[in-house]
This record gives sequence, C-alpha cells and structure tokens, in this order.
Amino acid sequence: MSVSAYWCERAWLGPGDVADDVLVEVEEQRIRSVRRDRSPGAAHRLAGLTIPGLANCHSHAFHRALRGRTQRGLGTFWTWREQMYAVARRLDPDSYYRLAFATYAEMALAGITCVGEFHYLHHQPDGTPYDDPNAMGEAVIAAATDAGLRIALLDTCYLSAGFGAPPEGVQIRYHDGSADAWGVRVADLAARHPAAADAAAEVGAAIHSVRAVPADQMPVVAALLPAAPLHAHVSEQVAENDACGQRYGRTPTAVLADAGAVSARFTAVHATHLSAADVGILGDAAAYACFCPTTERDLADGIGPARALADAGARLTLGSDSQAVIDPFEEMRAMELDERLSTRRRGHWPAGELLRAATSEGHAALGFPDAGRIAPGGWADLVTVDTGSVRTAGAGAGEEAAVYAASAVDVTHVLAGGRVVEHDPAEVARLLADAVEEVLAS
Amino acid sequence: MSVSAYWCERAWLGPGDVADDVLVEVEEQRIRSVRRDRSPGAAHRLAGLTIPGLANCHSHAFHRALRGRTQRGLGTFWTWREQMYAVARRLDPDSYYRLAFATYAEMALAGITCVGEFHYLHHQPDGTPYDDPNAMGEAVIAAATDAGLRIALLDTCYLSAGFGAPPEGVQIRYHDGSADAWGVRVADLAARHPAAADAAAEVGAAIHSVRAVPADQMPVVAALLPAAPLHAHVSEQVAENDACGQRYGRTPTAVLADAGAVSARFTAVHATHLSAADVGILGDAAAYACFCPTTERDLADGIGPARALADAGARLTLGSDSQAVIDPFEEMRAMELDERLSTRRRGHWPAGELLRAATSEGHAALGFPDAGRIAPGGWADLVTVDTGSVRTAGAGAGEEAAVYAASAVDVTHVLAGGRVVEHDPAEVARLLADAVEEVLAS
Repeated sequence: MSVSAYWCERAWLGPGDVADDVLVEVEEQRIRSVRRDRSPGAAHRLAGLTIPGLANCHSHAFHRALRGRTQRGLGTFWTWREQMYAVARRLDPDSYYRLAFATYAEMALAGITCVGEFHYLHHQPDGTPYDDPNAMGEAVIAAATDAGLRIALLDTCYLSAGFGAPPEGVQIRYHDGSADAWGVRVADLAARHPAAADAAAEVGAAIHSVRAVPADQMPVVAALLPAAPLHAHVSEQVAENDACGQRYGRTPTAVLADAGAVSARFTAVHATHLSAADVGILGDAAAYACFCPTTERDLADGIGPARALADAGARLTLGSDSQAVIDPFEEMRAMELDERLSTRRRGHWPAGELLRAATSEGHAALGFPDAGRIAPGGWADLVTVDTGSVRTAGAGAGEEAAVYAASAVDVTHVLAGGRVVEHDPAEVARLLADAVEEVLAS
Repeated sequence: MSVSAYWCERAWLGPGDVADDVLVEVEEQRIRSVRRDRSPGAAHRLAGLTIPGLANCHSHAFHRALRGRTQRGLGTFWTWREQMYAVARRLDPDSYYRLAFATYAEMALAGITCVGEFHYLHHQPDGTPYDDPNAMGEAVIAAATDAGLRIALLDTCYLSAGFGAPPEGVQIRYHDGSADAWGVRVADLAARHPAAADAAAEVGAAIHSVRAVPADQMPVVAALLPAAPLHAHVSEQVAENDACGQRYGRTPTAVLADAGAVSARFTAVHATHLSAADVGILGDAAAYACFCPTTERDLADGIGPARALADAGARLTLGSDSQAVIDPFEEMRAMELDERLSTRRRGHWPAGELLRAATSEGHAALGFPDAGRIAPGGWADLVTVDTGSVRTAGAGAGEEAAVYAASAVDVTHVLAGGRVVEHDPAEVARLLADAVEEVLAS
C-alpha cells in the first residue's frame, strides 16, 4: 500500500475556508486524511495555494486545432462550424489520439484533472464503422488517461443535420443510424469501462442537441446508462431556439424535459438563451448548467442566465469547449465578469462558488461525486497555484487570488488520483504543433 | 555611435503584413533599417513573431494594489472606488515609486514599452503640496523610466468631488485649487521634461472627468500644453451621464467638446455610454477612444461602441487601467470578444486593426507618433512573442496567433528605445508583493 503526504502552505477546503499548514495524506488514489500541521516533516511541500483538481466539463478536444485559425474577416457561428468540420473530416483514431493527448496535456498543465469529452466523431469518413466501432472513443479515452487525466467519455448521439434533415457531409461520421444502434455501440463501450470506484474512465451519454436528435429518439439515449451523466447542448444560439419552436412549438429545454432527459444527472451545456420557464425546469431538477464563457465569447453566443439558474436550484459547472483558451481560472472569473457586463453590477458570484463550480460540482456532473474536494476518502487530486507570480503577487493568498489573479500558467504542481502529473510545457507545445499541422495539412 | 541588429524569424510590419526573415538595424534609440534577409549573420536572433512595442494608454499604476482584493461579496463601482481611495491615502513619493516601479516592470514583461499614466495623486495627505509640488509626478516618471518604459505622464486636473461639490477625503490630495494653479504646477513639470525627439518622458494633460473639472475650467486645462496629449475619462458609468445631464443638459462628450477639449490630440478614455451624437463628435475630430476592456468588465461598466467609433473616424487605443490584468494580448482580443457578446456576431475587428490599436495608434495617442511601427526612423521597440508555447502552438505564426492565442507570458524579448529590457519575473513578483503589502498595511 502506497502512502504519500503533501503539505500545503495554504489549502482551499471549500467556499470561504482557506487554511494554512494543511497536511494531506494520500493512499493509492484517495485522500486518507486532511489535518492542520505546522511541521511539514517529510511531506512533499506545496508552496502557494492548493485547490482540488479542476474538472473541465465540456471539451471537444479536436477543436484545439482551430485556435487562432477562425478569426479571419467576418464570420458567424455557422461558418466557424464549417472550419471545425474540415478538421473533423481528416481525423482517424491515430491522429485523433495525438491531437487529444496534446490537448489533454495542455489541460493537465492548467490544473485540470478530469475532463468530460463530448464525443461525436465515431465513424470512418464514409460513415461506416471502424473495425472496432468504438475505435475513436477508445482513442480519446487512452489520450486522456495517458495524459494523466480522468475522463468521462460522453458518447454523443447525433442523428440528423437539423430538425429532421439527414446528416450532411462530415456528419455521416457522427451518425449511428438510430438511437438504438447508438445504444448498441455505446453499451459495448460502457461494458469495457465499467463504473467502478477507482476507474479513471467512465462512459456517459449525450444528446448532441435538439437539432441532431429527434425528440422521439431522446428517451432511448436517456435510458441507456441510467446511473451515468447525461449531457446535451442546450440553446447555444438563438437560431436553434427559433427552429426548435417551429418544429416542436417548445423550447429545447422543454423538448428535452418532455423526453425525460432532464434530471439531477443532466447537464445543460451553454444554456445561453433560456426562457424563465426553462430556468425553472433546470432549477427544479437540480440539473447542472455547464457554462463555457471563453467559447461563448468566441462564438458570439451571448451571456446566459447563470446566476438565475443557480438561484433556481441548478448547479454551475464550467468547460473549455472549443479550446479557444485552456485556462480554468479565466473561465471562473469570466462567469462573474460577463455577468457584470450584462447587468452593469458587480458581485454575482463569490469566488468560492466559482471554485466549487470548477471542482466538486464539475466532478459530480461528470460522474465523479467523490472528487473535487480536499477531504478524506475523496480522489487525491491537488492543484497548487503560485500566489507569488507577477500575476498573483500582492493579490493575497485566498480564493479571490485564485479566481481573479491567477492564470493556468500559475499552476505549479498537479496531483491526479494520487499520481503526480508532470508534462514539460515545451514538449507539450511541440506535440500540439505537430498534431495540429497533421490535421490541417493532411 | 552604437549600432545593433536583430533578426526576426517573423515580424508584423502592419495590418495583414507578416514577413519572414526580417533584419532590423538599430542605431541608438531608433530603427535604422528594416529589410528581408535570410541570413541572420551576427544579428541577435528573435525566434517567434516580433511585433512593435505595445503602448498602454491608460494606467493608474497604484491600482495594482487592489488586484484580487475588491471582489468580496456584493459591491458597485462606487464601493470599489472607496477601496481604491484607501490605498491612495497611504502613498507617498517613495512608496508610490516602489509600487509604480514594480507595476511598470510587470508591464515591461508583458511587452509594454510605453505607458500613459493618468496621474492625479499630487499632494500630501492633508492637501498641501510637497516641497517639490511635483514630487509624486516625478516619482512616477522615474519609476517608468527605471523600469525601462517610456512614459507620457498625463497630469490630471481634479477640482471637485462631483458636479460642483468640493473634494472629499483623499480627494484633497488630487486637488490643485483651480485649473490655473494646476497649470502653474504642470507647466513647471513640463519644463523639466521638455518634448524632444528622443525624450523617454513627456508630460501631457488630463481632465479627470466632467465630475471633477467644471466646464468653465476645462479650457484652461486644454490650452496649457497645446501640442501634448489631452486625455479624459468619458462616460464610464451611466450615473455620470445622468448627473452630467442634470448639471449641464448635455452629455460629457458634448461638454468636453464645447470646452474645446476634443481634437485629434484628445483621448476619450472608456467612452462606454455614448449617444450617437457623441460618437459623431469624437469621430469627426479623429479623436482617440481608449478602451480598457478587462477593467470595464471588472467594474461592470458595460461594452462601449468601439466599432461605431472607429467607423465614424475615431482611433482605437487600449489601456490596462486598474491593472486587474496586465496583458495587452487579452485587452486586444477582449475588444472583439466583448463586441461579439453585445452583438451576437463575430468579425468586428480584424486582428491587424487590434495590433495597430495596441502599437502605432496607442503611441500616437501618448505623444509618440514615431513609435509602434517596425519601420526606419521609428523608436526601436521590438516585442517578441513565442509562437510555440502551449498557448500559441498550432495557432499559426500570424497576427491572429498574437491576438487570439498569446498571453503576456508568451513575451520572450523586449527592446524599448534600442535597449533590451530585462526583468526577472520572480524578482518583479517579490517587488510587487512588498510594495502592495507596504501600502495595504501601513
């Protein structure tokens, strides 16, 4: 039995609870004990502020290839999507692994210890399954675990290009033919990665959107893995709401709720353009709302009603989504800052609530309810933030320094599931450059 | 005569013009020649993308002490201002020098080679002048030049707490008694730092705001240094507009214009809440509009009509203002991203226009029209960005990579006025921590 000890100069133990001199004992993948102790002894010393591991609840790993590439001239969400599809056309299990591994390594450097990959790139370019129909999903799972992260592979059902329209172009790679066929494939994948207390990979389900899954197919997706997370893109764009209203006479949230998809294990990703009734539905269900503010800025989605959702009972989580930025600290503060822009008032999200969204709530939304807290029995994930960098110096050593002054580059030490996660930033950068070049040039 | 040469792997020579293999010869403070040359020879090699030095057009150096400190609970712009005043109360020329030096060093690390300091902390805590009435301004100038930056000290006239109300509390430190008395003091300071081709410090003028300078005093401020920059805070908050309307029956922009302050050497700082007529006034004058997007997020100011101003003829510049963040790359992209949030469309600012705002336009607005371009005769300011970091890898090596993928931490080499500016980040962080502790604790 392997036991190790980490001594934190300061540790964030929960909203409003920052403690000095915290000794954390780790046994295998779990935290055995947490106590105040002024003498580090032989423990590994973590200078700065140590927080739990960060959960990135909405990732499309391969979008990393688009960073800095989609900003030319004028363009809409839909023209951005065309560029994204061009990358999707080129990936195969090997190149997908390489791009995802490099992207997840960038996440690990930023303090992310668990990722929810919203995975829909399932089949060969002509739409036929690979010899292993889950070859792409397995590539993503291997990339994350090899990079040192836990992963919830949110296997995504994608059946139509729009409301009733057949898949177009690269979308045939996403398409399983029916929700039942999706279920056969995903059941096999889930059986290979059974939910277990110490499993580093879990399989969850996702409904891509109301555009891509007909309402009558949604119950099949919702029912397949009844104990696992269920995610869906919800109301990211006004155009989606409009089309949904025309097709169903209801909002996307209402369509999902009527299909039985909305519950306490459901995550509404984006949740940007909601009605008051939608907010009530998600709040009453204690569902998660995953905001991805840097992507929502980049894609001109707008500013969603995050505070209203939380006040109604929904639980905030965060995601890097398109990888325009991989910096969970920027995502945390962007929640507050964008809400300030839309309301012209300050003070919507105490820093501790934003840290909770990025840690314990995020892990719970990904099916790891026993992670994201520095507490006995939980996953041994510790992320140490330098509170004495040029960015953080003078900002104190409390939760506000982490949320409002720190950046990904201030992460100095990462422990995930009891293992130190080390990557050389220069090597990760080389892998990123190579992986992007491969998928842009091929 | 000292001549040195820098060979740039890539260089940004203007919007849309990124060139490989650029050899820049530097003679004293100036660029002597710029040419393509595939052989670096003995030149100092600059790997990555080299851009001109960045101009930070709106800085309150001492606000750096507030980073991460003003986010607790609920609060408004006006409660933030109270915390800022508490720091202002404690500064003296020595502590102001130390805090400003550390802050400017943080700027230099971020690629900023020229700062516009909007300086209003003039007098002793009881309102009486220091033995040298310009002791505080001199401290700021020395801090910038010692840190390796050029500075436009925008000496700010501040006469009233509100429309007609006498200065309150710490504001007596800002107050010269009258615009004429402000002018006597500033004329002396300007005489000590005469405008000269190779002067690293210049003195400009500023009208704090329509709140703080009565309209009938504005012409005195505008007339004192007729060839130097003139800046003013304009319409940062709706409350200011409302009070201005009650007092003058006009907008702040109209009041400033009627006082003769608005011209091609005028910078409207923030310009957040403008009428269509205000946009026309600033555009017709070809005035500068200095946006400070990370501060405008932080203070819940709102999203100003930057694109409309540019389309009307105004010139965009950028500032770090409250130092909530010191990252000119984040300021550049925030211009586009926040406009996306307010319009739900992408594609307002080509990356090259944002780089121009941060470089040549910014320098011109600070009275350095011959800076901010990699061109013969200009100031020899070169800032090199790592295009192979974990943030920038795969994003290309063009202007979009700089604007949308890079961060301050990707700046690898800074040349300002022909001199290499080097700071050890760890040492700057220590200076920041010490300087902040001094003013928070004393």
